Amino acid sequence: MSGKPLLEQLMQALRCLPGVGPRSAQRMAFHLLERDREGGRHLARLLEASMERIGHCGRCRTLSEEAVCALCANPRRSDAQLCVVESPAEVAALEQATDFGGRYFVLGGRLSPLDGIGPREIGLDLLARRLSEEGTEELILATNPTVEGEATAHYIGQMARERGIRVTRIAHGVPLGGELEYVDGGTLSHAFAGRRDY
Amino acid sequence: MSGKPLLEQLMQALRCLPGVGPRSAQRMAFHLLERDREGGRHLARLLEASMERIGHCGRCRTLSEEAVCALCANPRRSDAQLCVVESPAEVAALEQATDFGGRYFVLGGRLSPLDGIGPREIGLDLLARRLSEEGTEELILATNPTVEGEATAHYIGQMARERGIRVTRIAHGVPLGGELEYVDGGTLSHAFAGRRDY
Ligand SMILES: [Zn+2]
Ligand SMILES: [Zn+2]
Repeated sequence: MSGKPLLEQLMQALRCLPGVGPRSAQRMAFHLLERDREGGRHLARLLEASMERIGHCGRCRTLSEEAVCALCANPRRSDAQLCVVESPAEVAALEQATDFGGRYFVLGGRLSPLDGIGPREIGLDLLARRLSEEGTEELILATNPTVEGEATAHYIGQMARERGIRVTRIAHGVPLGGELEYVDGGTLSHAFAGRRDY
Repeated sequence: MSGKPLLEQLMQALRCLPGVGPRSAQRMAFHLLERDREGGRHLARLLEASMERIGHCGRCRTLSEEAVCALCANPRRSDAQLCVVESPAEVAALEQATDFGGRYFVLGGRLSPLDGIGPREIGLDLLARRLSEEGTEELILATNPTVEGEATAHYIGQMARERGIRVTRIAHGVPLGGELEYVDGGTLSHAFAGRRDY
């Protein structure tokens, strides 16, 4: 920590949170210090523990503090369906909006050769192993409807078809260029239910 | 920390921040874990240090990690003017919006007898000592234009007049029931400049 006043440093640090500008950072800092120091201490402990102990699931690559996440470890979910998304936030969004009972695979990005993001960077070697070894019958492509998201879906669709697996794509009820994570539950649920062969 | 998954606990803890609902808490947690773990660790350290080490200035009662805050310790500010506000956030708002060069006194609330908040709870014993011992020539009342803020201003105005000190009140350019902290700088600057005898 530098020589700047602690209060200024705290306001600056709060701005690492998405959607927090200088004005709300100031409001947050004053709120915690004037009205909720226990809340501030509790948040500090949880941030520290979370940054340290939450890693990625070895099977689906979503965020998890266990080696295998709760969704992958759940014996009541079906291995026949595998839904591929870009980020852990999208797993959460789909879990909240749909009654999907299969498995997930989290890419953690999308193919972008110019940025050096190839198949390996988004875990496609691991996905290939899963598609070859498990009883996946339907692969559901739920990448975002952006140019790179579509290219990624196309690439993964080929991988699955080569292994004789049916490939579907969630319906485009979401506006082009939009991010799945921010779509309302109703739209998302509709798009998921209306998925078609791809 | 309980047995709930760490990620859920983190999202819950983020909701102690003002203006953060379930959806933005989730977005914040995923953002830190997926894209900015160093930012998350830095925020944890600053929250912990701030909750521990930031107290209140012994002279003006604003938030300060030193026994006497930078504003009170600054020899270039004038003792002739003393501005009374309800909260540290309002000191920051006035400093940002006006060119006031005097001193402050922070009540940390407003008189509310039914809630057990009397003169001592808002530091009026300390304020009385300052008014008697220092060369205050003008006391500027900048409490919020709410019923309790007005009653508090009235009470403090009497204290100052009894000691032969001129009392002014910032102009009511802010909507009734509004909170000083959220008013835009222009309005606040205007109201401050247009203060009148009280
Ligand atoms: Zn998993
Ligand atoms: Zn001070």
